[in-house]
Amino acid sequence: MHNAMAANNNIMIPADEMKHIFNSILVKYGFTNTKAGTCAQIFTENSLDGIYTHGVNRFPRFVEYVQKGYVDKDATPSLQHKFGGIEQWNGNKAPGILNAIQATSTATTLAQQFGIGCVAMANTNHWMRGGTYGWQAAKAGFVFIGWTNTTALMPAWGATDAKLGNNPLVIALPYNNEAIVLDMAMSQYSFGAMEQAVIKNQSLSVPGGYDATGAITTDPAAILQSKRPLPIGYWKGAGLALLLDILAAVLSGGLAVHQISSQQVEYGLSQVFIAIDIAKLGDASSITQIVENIIDDYKRSAPASEKDSITWPGERVLAARGKNAVYGIPVVDAVWRQILEL
Amino acid sequence: MHNAMAANNNIMIPADEMKHIFNSILVKYGFTNTKAGTCAQIFTENSLDGIYTHGVNRFPRFVEYVQKGYVDKDATPSLQHKFGGIEQWNGNKAPGILNAIQATSTATTLAQQFGIGCVAMANTNHWMRGGTYGWQAAKAGFVFIGWTNTTALMPAWGATDAKLGNNPLVIALPYNNEAIVLDMAMSQYSFGAMEQAVIKNQSLSVPGGYDATGAITTDPAAILQSKRPLPIGYWKGAGLALLLDILAAVLSGGLAVHQISSQQVEYGLSQVFIAIDIAKLGDASSITQIVENIIDDYKRSAPASEKDSITWPGERVLAARGKNAVYGIPVVDAVWRQILEL
Repeated sequence: MHNAMAANNNIMIPADEMKHIFNSILVKYGFTNTKAGTCAQIFTENSLDGIYTHGVNRFPRFVEYVQKGYVDKDATPSLQHKFGGIEQWNGNKAPGILNAIQATSTATTLAQQFGIGCVAMANTNHWMRGGTYGWQAAKAGFVFIGWTNTTALMPAWGATDAKLGNNPLVIALPYNNEAIVLDMAMSQYSFGAMEQAVIKNQSLSVPGGYDATGAITTDPAAILQSKRPLPIGYWKGAGLALLLDILAAVLSGGLAVHQISSQQVEYGLSQVFIAIDIAKLGDASSITQIVENIIDDYKRSAPASEKDSITWPGERVLAARGKNAVYGIPVVDAVWRQILEL
Repeated sequence: MHNAMAANNNIMIPADEMKHIFNSILVKYGFTNTKAGTCAQIFTENSLDGIYTHGVNRFPRFVEYVQKGYVDKDATPSLQHKFGGIEQWNGNKAPGILNAIQATSTATTLAQQFGIGCVAMANTNHWMRGGTYGWQAAKAGFVFIGWTNTTALMPAWGATDAKLGNNPLVIALPYNNEAIVLDMAMSQYSFGAMEQAVIKNQSLSVPGGYDATGAITTDPAAILQSKRPLPIGYWKGAGLALLLDILAAVLSGGLAVHQISSQQVEYGLSQVFIAIDIAKLGDASSITQIVENIIDDYKRSAPASEKDSITWPGERVLAARGKNAVYGIPVVDAVWRQILEL
C-alpha cells in the first residue's frame, strides 16, 4: 500500500536532494532555518521510510496550510499545567511535526525523572506520520505510546454518518539498535489507500466499508461513495477510536473530533505522548533478550502460503528505508513538479 | 453475546445469594474471609454486569486452578523495582483478581503522587474481566489504561499457527457518576463466543476467522476447527496484540505469550496498569463537560437501521447491571448445580 506510488510515472529523488528542496521552500515561505531544517528532515524521512502519503505527497498541503494560516510557522507550544510526570501544553497551532517532536522529547525527559511521563497537547496540527515519534522515543531508549485525534472520518458502529476520527495510535520500543513501531489508524483503510486502489482498478484485500446498499464490500469506489469506511474490528475499533478521542480531549483540554469536524479543514488537534524509561526497570541486556525471544518465536510462525511473510511492525519500514536510500525515493512525476513550483 | 447464557434452561440467582455462595465455597477451600469476600464480590459483579464468561461460568475453573496450585490462594504480590511513578511487581501466582485490584489501586496512588502511575506485574493470573479494573480506577476518578497477555490463541498475520495472545486491552475514564469502559480482546471473537454460536446454530455477524481451505468465513464451527480466529482489523490487530505482549513482558519482567503457551495451562501472566489523575489537569466540571459533549455528539449518529442503537463502551454493561439487579442473574442450570457441588 505504501508503495502504491512506486509505479511507472515515478522519478527517483535522492533523500539529500529532497531534503534540500523541502528546506529551501520552507525558508522561502518564512520558516527559520532551524524549523525549516527539522520539517524538511521529517518529510524526507517519512518518504525514505515509504510513508509517501505523509511525506512527499503531503508536503504541498502542508505549505498550503501555512499560507492559509491553519499552521502558524512562527508559533511555539506553551505549558498550561504541570504536575509530576504529566504536562498539558497548548500547541498554539505551530507545525504539527515540530510540536510533536518537542512533546515526545518532553515526555522522555519526564520519564527519565519520574519513570513514566505524559504530555498532552491541545491546539496542535497534523503530525504527519505518527511513527516518527515512536521511532524518536524508541531510538532514545524509551517505550512510547501516543495518539492523535483527527477530523470525523468513520461512522459509529451501527450508524451511517461520520462521527469518529481514525485517530492513529502509535506504540514503540527499542529493538536491535532500531525499533519496533506500530503505527495504526482505527479505520481498516485510509481514504488515500482506497483512492489508490480505485486508480489501480484493484479490490481491497479485506472488507473496507459499506456500499450504497449497506452491504460490507471490498470495492473501494463503493466505499468512497458511501463514505462509510469500516473501523478495525467493526464495533471494537469504533469503541477504541471513541476512547482515544475522549482521552486526547480530556488530557489536553483541547478539541475533540466533533469540534475539529465543525471547522473548514483539519487543524487544532489534540494529541497524547506517553514515554516510559525502561532502563529504570531492568538492565538493558535482559530487556533486549525478552524482546528478541518474542520476535524469534513470532518469526517461527508457519506461513499460510509461499507468498506470506511474517513481519513485525516496523520491519517493512526498515526495508523501504534501505531500498530508498540506495535507489532514491520514488516520487510521482506530477507531485514533484508541483513541489518544485512552490 | 454476553447474554448467550440467558436462554431457556436458566435459573435466576439474586446477586446477594450468588456472592454468599461463592464466598462460602472459597472459605471452604481455605481462602481467608477477606480474600474470599473480594473474589466472591468480583465474580458476582462480573455476572451482574452480564459478563458471564468471566463471572459465574468461570468460577468452577478458578476453584479448580486453586486446587491444582496454578493459583496460590495464600500468596500476595511483592515489589521488585520502584522508580518514581513506575513499579514492577511479582504477583507470586496469587489470585489474578486480588493482584489486579491491588495493582490498580497502587497505580492510582502513584498517579495521585506523580500525575501518572504505572504498575507492571509479572507472574500473576487471569484477571477474569479486564473491565473490572477500568471500573475500579474510573469510579475513583482516574483515567485507566491496562492490558494482560494470555496464552497463544491467534496466528500472526499471514500465518496458520497460534503465536499471539488475544491480550485484552482496557481503557476507562469517569463519566456521569459511572464510567466509560472499553474492554476488548484482540481477536474478533473469543472461542467461547464461537462455541455459543455453534450451539445456537448461528453464523457470526462479521467474519471471525478462516475455514479449513484458508478462506475467511463467518462459520464458527469452521473456525473452531481451523484454530485460526481473526485478529481485529486483520494485520492491525495482530500487530497490536504483538506489541501489547512485548510491553507486558518488558515492563513486568515476566512471561511472554510464547512462554505462557509452553505451559500446560494459562497461568503466570504479565499485566500492565496505568492510571492518570485527571484532577491534576483541570477542574472536574470542565472535564465532565468535554466528555458529555463528545458522547452527546456520538449519540446523535444516524442509525443504519431501526435495529441499530448507538452505544458507548460500558453502556450495555450498565443496562445488564440494572436488569440483573432487578430480575436476578441468569445462570445455566447445569453450571449452577456444578457450583453448588463444589
